[in-house]
Amino acid sequence: MEYGPYFQGKRVLVTGGAGFIGSNLARRLAGLGAYVTLVDSLIPEYGGNLANIEDLGEMVRLNIADVRDEHAMEYLVQGQDYLFNLAGQTSHLDSMTDPFTDLDINCRAQLAILEACRRANPSVRLVFASTRQIYGRPDYLPVDEKHLLRPTDVNGVNKMAGEWYHILYNNVYDIPACALRLTNTFGPGMRVKDARQTFVGIWIRLALEGKPFEVWGGEQLRDFTYVDDCVEAMLLCAVRDEARGQVYNLGGQPVVSLRELADMLAELSGAEYAIKEFPPERKRIDIGDYYSSFERIRDELGWEPRVDLKEGLSRTLDYYRERLDKYL
Amino acid sequence: MEYGPYFQGKRVLVTGGAGFIGSNLARRLAGLGAYVTLVDSLIPEYGGNLANIEDLGEMVRLNIADVRDEHAMEYLVQGQDYLFNLAGQTSHLDSMTDPFTDLDINCRAQLAILEACRRANPSVRLVFASTRQIYGRPDYLPVDEKHLLRPTDVNGVNKMAGEWYHILYNNVYDIPACALRLTNTFGPGMRVKDARQTFVGIWIRLALEGKPFEVWGGEQLRDFTYVDDCVEAMLLCAVRDEARGQVYNLGGQPVVSLRELADMLAELSGAEYAIKEFPPERKRIDIGDYYSSFERIRDELGWEPRVDLKEGLSRTLDYYRERLDKYL
Repeated sequence: MEYGPYFQGKRVLVTGGAGFIGSNLARRLAGLGAYVTLVDSLIPEYGGNLANIEDLGEMVRLNIADVRDEHAMEYLVQGQDYLFNLAGQTSHLDSMTDPFTDLDINCRAQLAILEACRRANPSVRLVFASTRQIYGRPDYLPVDEKHLLRPTDVNGVNKMAGEWYHILYNNVYDIPACALRLTNTFGPGMRVKDARQTFVGIWIRLALEGKPFEVWGGEQLRDFTYVDDCVEAMLLCAVRDEARGQVYNLGGQPVVSLRELADMLAELSGAEYAIKEFPPERKRIDIGDYYSSFERIRDELGWEPRVDLKEGLSRTLDYYRERLDKYL
Repeated sequence: MEYGPYFQGKRVLVTGGAGFIGSNLARRLAGLGAYVTLVDSLIPEYGGNLANIEDLGEMVRLNIADVRDEHAMEYLVQGQDYLFNLAGQTSHLDSMTDPFTDLDINCRAQLAILEACRRANPSVRLVFASTRQIYGRPDYLPVDEKHLLRPTDVNGVNKMAGEWYHILYNNVYDIPACALRLTNTFGPGMRVKDARQTFVGIWIRLALEGKPFEVWGGEQLRDFTYVDDCVEAMLLCAVRDEARGQVYNLGGQPVVSLRELADMLAELSGAEYAIKEFPPERKRIDIGDYYSSFERIRDELGWEPRVDLKEGLSRTLDYYRERLDKYL
C-alpha cells in the first residue's frame, strides 16, 4: 500500500514512542514525511529507550511525559491527524504485585486520552495496541476474534478495558478508533535487558553474551510477529475506513514450540540453552499453547506477515550485535 | 435449598447494602440468622435508601462508607465469612458524562476490595453483582454466557473489568468468587424517584401518582427478574462450590415487549401510558431486543425464577402504595 498521501505533512502522535514498537513506527512515519511527536515517560522498567530513536535525530520530536499526566496529554492530542496509542504497562507479574499502577496506566490514562480527544480533537484517527493476552487460556486454536476474553492477570483485565474504551468512543462519539491484538512482537528495539517485555528479549541478550539461556517448559506453541509487520498493520488500520471500531488479531508464521524457537536462536547465534521446569508462580498465570488467527485482518484489510520468524530473528540479532550495550 | 446451616451465626458483608437488591438480600440473611453488616455510601443519586432497611432495625448493622474508601473497606472485609459485592455506579448516562467516577467505583474500588480480601481474608466467599449490559447489542437471543462482551457505554466497560477482577482473584489467589450477570431486576426497594436505576422505577412512581408514564419505543423485548429470585441466586452462588470462578446469567419469565410490560402495569395500577419516540442521545447506547438464557445456572445450580412478571409487579405496586413518599 502507498502510504505517502496519507501521512506526508500530517501530524502524528505516538504514545510509547521511544519504546520498541513505537520507535519502529516512528521511523516509518518519519520516512513517509509525517510530523511525528513521540510521547514517552522513559520509566526505566518500561520499554522506552533513547537508543531506539537516536538515528532519527531531528526527524521526530520527543516529548517526555507520562500518559497518566492528563494535562500534558490534553494538550498533546490537539491538532494531531493520527494517534498511535502504544504506551502501556506490559508486565504481567508487575500487574499482580502493583495492580493500581497497571490500572492507572492501562485504564484511567486511556480513558483520559479518549476524553481529551473527544473534547479537543474528535476527528483524530486512533490505533490502540491491545494484546492477545486478554484471551487467556484458549478454548481452540488458532484463536480468532470470536473467542471469549478471559484475562488471566490484572494486566489482561485492564488492557481489555482499555481496548473497549477505544471501541466505545468510536461507536458513541464517532472518534475513528480501532484496536490490534498483538501477539509476541519481536525485532530491533525490543527490551532485551530482562524478560519484562517478552522472554525472547532476555534470550537474545544471553545468546549474544555467549551465555546459555533458559527455556521454561519448551513444548508451548506460540506465534511471533516481526515488528515491521506489526508497524504495517498499524498504518493500514489508521488509514482504512473499514477498520473503524474494529478489533483485529495479528499473528505470524510459522507457529513454533518454544523449543523450536530456542533451536532457531541457538543456530543463528551459536548460543546454548537449557530446558527448565516452569516456575510455579508463573504457571498460575500461564496460558498454555497459544497462536492467533489473523484471517480477519487479512481478509478485510489485506495484511499478512511478510517477514518469517527465522529471518526476523536474524535481523534482530544483527541489530543487537552492534549495540547491545545501549540496551543493558 | 436449606440455607440455615450456611448462614446461621455467620458474618456477612453486603456492599450497596441499603440499596435495592442489597436490602432485600440483607433481610433474607438476617432471617437466616447471619450477622449482617451493610456498607452503603447513601449518595442520593445512587440506590441506597434508609427506607429499604427501616424494618430491619437492630437485625443488621449499617456502616456508612463509600466503597472507594480503601481504608474503611480494608477493615470491613476482615473476619467476614461472605461478601456480597453489590455497590456500584449503575447509571449508563452518568458513566458517559463523568467516566472517571464510574471508573473509580466500578473498577478501582473493586480491585481495592479484592486486594483487601487477598491480604486480610482470602477465604471469604464473594459474590459480585455484574450486569447483562456488558454484552451490548446481542448477536443472538437468548444471550448465553458464550456471547462476546461488547459494552456500549463506559459503565459497561468498567463493570466488565470489575467482574473479571473477581474471576481473576478466584483463579489466581483461590479467593472463592463468582459473578452474576443480572438482567432487569425489579421489586420492592428499587429506585422509583427517577429512571437512574431502571425505567421501570419511574413508570411505577408515575403510575402510583396517577400520571401517565412514557414508553420509549415499545417493541423492544426484555426479561425481568423479581428481586427475591435474584437474592436466591446470590445465596446459591455464595454457598455452592461449583460456582467458584464462574459467571452466570440471570433471566426471567415471560420475555415481554416494553409495550406489553406497560399494558401489564397499566392494568394493575389503572394508570395510562404514552408511546414516545426514542430520544436520540439514548438511542446511541441502546441495545435493541435483549433477553438472557439462564440455562447455565439452572443446569449447574438448579436456580430458576419463581415469581413471574405480573405477580412481581403486583407485589411491587403494593409495596410502594404504602410508602411512596419515602422514595421520592
